[in-house]
Amino acid sequence: MSKTLPGVGVTPLSGLGQARWYRPDERPDPESIEAGEPDAELKRFADAQEQAREELETEREQTAERVGEEEAAVFDAHLQFLDDPQITDGVEAAIDDGAAAEAGVARAFGSAIEQFEGMEGMMAERADDMRDIRDRLLRILSGGERMDLATLPEGTVLLAERLTPSDTAQLDPDRVAGFATATGGRTSHAAIFARSLGIPAVVGVGEDLLEIDEGADVAVDATNDDVIVDPDEETRKRVTAGRDVEIRTEPVETADGVEIEVAANLGTTAELDGAVEQGADGIGLYRTEFLFLDREQPPDEDEQFESYAEALEAFPEGRVVVRTLDVGGDKPIPYLDAEDEENPFLGHRGIRRSLEDDSNLFETQLRALLRAAAEGDGRLSVMFPLVSTVDELDGALDAVDAAAESLSADDIEYERPELGVMIETPGAVLMADELAERVDFFSIGTNDLAQYVMAASRENDAVAHLHDPLHPAVLRAIDRSVDAAHDNDTWIGMCGEMAGDPTATELLVGLGLDELSMSAVTIPEVKAKVAETDTQAARELAERAVSASTISEIRELLTDTS
Amino acid sequence: MSKTLPGVGVTPLSGLGQARWYRPDERPDPESIEAGEPDAELKRFADAQEQAREELETEREQTAERVGEEEAAVFDAHLQFLDDPQITDGVEAAIDDGAAAEAGVARAFGSAIEQFEGMEGMMAERADDMRDIRDRLLRILSGGERMDLATLPEGTVLLAERLTPSDTAQLDPDRVAGFATATGGRTSHAAIFARSLGIPAVVGVGEDLLEIDEGADVAVDATNDDVIVDPDEETRKRVTAGRDVEIRTEPVETADGVEIEVAANLGTTAELDGAVEQGADGIGLYRTEFLFLDREQPPDEDEQFESYAEALEAFPEGRVVVRTLDVGGDKPIPYLDAEDEENPFLGHRGIRRSLEDDSNLFETQLRALLRAAAEGDGRLSVMFPLVSTVDELDGALDAVDAAAESLSADDIEYERPELGVMIETPGAVLMADELAERVDFFSIGTNDLAQYVMAASRENDAVAHLHDPLHPAVLRAIDRSVDAAHDNDTWIGMCGEMAGDPTATELLVGLGLDELSMSAVTIPEVKAKVAETDTQAARELAERAVSASTISEIRELLTDTS
Repeated sequence: MSKTLPGVGVTPLSGLGQARWYRPDERPDPESIEAGEPDAELKRFADAQEQAREELETEREQTAERVGEEEAAVFDAHLQFLDDPQITDGVEAAIDDGAAAEAGVARAFGSAIEQFEGMEGMMAERADDMRDIRDRLLRILSGGERMDLATLPEGTVLLAERLTPSDTAQLDPDRVAGFATATGGRTSHAAIFARSLGIPAVVGVGEDLLEIDEGADVAVDATNDDVIVDPDEETRKRVTAGRDVEIRTEPVETADGVEIEVAANLGTTAELDGAVEQGADGIGLYRTEFLFLDREQPPDEDEQFESYAEALEAFPEGRVVVRTLDVGGDKPIPYLDAEDEENPFLGHRGIRRSLEDDSNLFETQLRALLRAAAEGDGRLSVMFPLVSTVDELDGALDAVDAAAESLSADDIEYERPELGVMIETPGAVLMADELAERVDFFSIGTNDLAQYVMAASRENDAVAHLHDPLHPAVLRAIDRSVDAAHDNDTWIGMCGEMAGDPTATELLVGLGLDELSMSAVTIPEVKAKVAETDTQAARELAERAVSASTISEIRELLTDTS
Repeated sequence: MSKTLPGVGVTPLSGLGQARWYRPDERPDPESIEAGEPDAELKRFADAQEQAREELETEREQTAERVGEEEAAVFDAHLQFLDDPQITDGVEAAIDDGAAAEAGVARAFGSAIEQFEGMEGMMAERADDMRDIRDRLLRILSGGERMDLATLPEGTVLLAERLTPSDTAQLDPDRVAGFATATGGRTSHAAIFARSLGIPAVVGVGEDLLEIDEGADVAVDATNDDVIVDPDEETRKRVTAGRDVEIRTEPVETADGVEIEVAANLGTTAELDGAVEQGADGIGLYRTEFLFLDREQPPDEDEQFESYAEALEAFPEGRVVVRTLDVGGDKPIPYLDAEDEENPFLGHRGIRRSLEDDSNLFETQLRALLRAAAEGDGRLSVMFPLVSTVDELDGALDAVDAAAESLSADDIEYERPELGVMIETPGAVLMADELAERVDFFSIGTNDLAQYVMAASRENDAVAHLHDPLHPAVLRAIDRSVDAAHDNDTWIGMCGEMAGDPTATELLVGLGLDELSMSAVTIPEVKAKVAETDTQAARELAERAVSASTISEIRELLTDTS
């Protein structure tokens, strides 16, 4: 009989396959291992460190390539901790006291983990990183081989207590039908990697997951937050349906002939091929932060120009919307002044920093963008993040003028791109008319917008139920922004996660969005949904949703129509 | 000739007097002090610790009484650090190594301060606390007497590099005409204490302050963020004008006869007398957190009942609005699960916690409130903090019904109070119609509302220019809330700091607020402003402000009319 285990779905995908358990932590108690001579144990530890370093470097590269630069950054932290002199000293001191290398590692990391656990926020997350490194060293010391996660049999549903970033990065979306873990939340590394790779995944299932037998038939229905053991025929059909969605490489129209642009969100140019393959019409959000990460100096104008031009080349017909540097708060960059902030999401971020920065980062980026716009015959567009006042937008527009003047003065070819603002603060929504008068387009960032409207951090599980963009307050904010845009002949898109949720597509078309931009993996499903949508029915759905009082009413509306 | 030094005004007050310098830190280098025998130095250190403990306990009591319980909590942290075994061990080890007690203190605290400085947010603030304790111990060890800040000559303007919480708590508002410091920001302890005590204060003036001569004529014009040395006649008149405002103990009407309720914000019942003396019509915000702080167990129903009844007794004619427990995030309480959150202002706070809390804290508080309402013949009102969805409000209203039923079942007398919601999230603004249908009143919390609308923390100086409630986006949110309230026959007040700013009074009356609630010290000025206001002119001002594009246009409007 079929059995359903609820969890937290982290990709809007589902899959069906055979259960395979991954249990990397089954090892003898480190304290029970007999120690050799201290010199021999010290050498074992040094060798294990060296092997760990090699593994991490390889995995860092693989992850950067297969998942993305941002995601790969976690390995830099691991490499740093691996060489931390305080921990290394601790291990060596324990070995000098007669401990085996295993016990030394367990003790030194144990006390470091305890320290981090006593701290706040980001520091507490470091405890998880330390556990990963400890377990890696213990595995290497025990001579244990890892299950080769990259070559799992096709149709495997991987089950685990938890998956580390390294584990998840190895998974091959063409082989793995999905994974489920007992622990973890929507913002765990495993969840983020699963989204980037496009693997159906349900996390945080709890202890019940451990009861599933090796080889059992398991459906991972992440759209509905469920893991289903021995699924019935109906469930099997449902969870495999999404897998067969046709890829449409042409722009898509609703059933009644309204074209909706469906574009991809991009972190690095390495993701361009994937976006083209999934049928993106263009790039709706090119996050330029990744150009600036993991280096000692910012990229110069030419390097940036090349990167923007490369994105344009990948989409000879489509538009490429580039967001100017959005750092600060939760996205620190080493060579910029990092500020420790108590509430980074309410801090010195986005356009705020660009306008106040006294280095010429913003000017350099704008010059590179204006030059690339000339290459792309105007298909390159530029948008500004976290605008919350008209003054900020005016400041950004002045900076574009200044960049154009300096290019003219230098006799360098450029074109003035379409300019837009991200609508992601309630302030921008409330000033949408004044902002729309000044720009060519809006793009709604629903992740930030929902967290500010609902005053609920998207990284805090305790308030996860509140930072859902389907709350009527958020839909009203979107509705108001669309009205302001269209009243001013400004086109409006959406690049938050909501844009990639096929269950929301009809609603978004009904609200009047002209463009939807998302992780490439969800494009085929969203294009399919657009093609099915009738705009008149969608508008009626949107009207009912905007006048609803609670999120459950809106969920019912979406269920009724899907 | 008069000279103006700009800084950060932290109270909407101004004063004029003679400069007096406070320089508590002028002491010999601790490392230059010759050490006696280790035993003697150890005893000197132990004695200094003991004396510091006595001072801190006395100052804690004085502060609780004169400033408030919340503010006094900083001394608990100091007392804890004073006895920190790691630091004490460090000092003693240094003395054992031949150092004088002074050098031991300087070294042990120095390394602790360094550690804290390397950490994030709240931990970094601890470095300041450690500096205070170190300096206190060094002063005691040097046998130094402190300047008696409680008995400064009347008309003193106190000048200092910086003021510690203990320094500020000693200041007597009847004697001190104001203070100015070279360092510090709007949220420093000195600033918070100055507001609670009602002392004109400008902080963060910088090094120029140090040039002012002892005995100079100095105006502290905190309303305009300035310190003025040798002020001219016009400035003298301006800065002393506010001091003579008549206290009105009767409710106040606008020039054309519209009554506006002017009430006080309250932290503890110790502040009731001050509120009555300043002519408050009632209490517009009784923050009940302070009942729950600094204790091992929450207050029981009877203790809470007594406290609420005491507030009602102080205002036999006026309304008392009690806000239910608003903890979590930035207001941790020891016996509740403290959660470390990355973005506490977007975290698990206010009504969110009350509805999910599985202890019976919320039920106990509601029972105490319903009992007190019977005592006050319905003048007691209850409001819920940080509501962002209709579901949350419905949950809170259900909890009130349940409390009423349980009191009925226990045969205890109670009355159903007026019920209201704080409007402090953009979500509440966007759902204001649905919320207004369900309650008797709204109270706008502009401090939180501004930070969420503008996505700018009120504790982060780097974005201080953004979390100003005069931004047009915030005014539009207020305007929308007032319309929704009045459309549903719901009265609407304001209890954020904006309500106590006399330069905003006409605008707020024009926006249609029925009640303004503020720190007691600003009541006389706001009542005077209300009495001068013509509602028709105020409405026109508000209309212009709501349709303005930038905060500078709004500031100009306010200057033109004041």
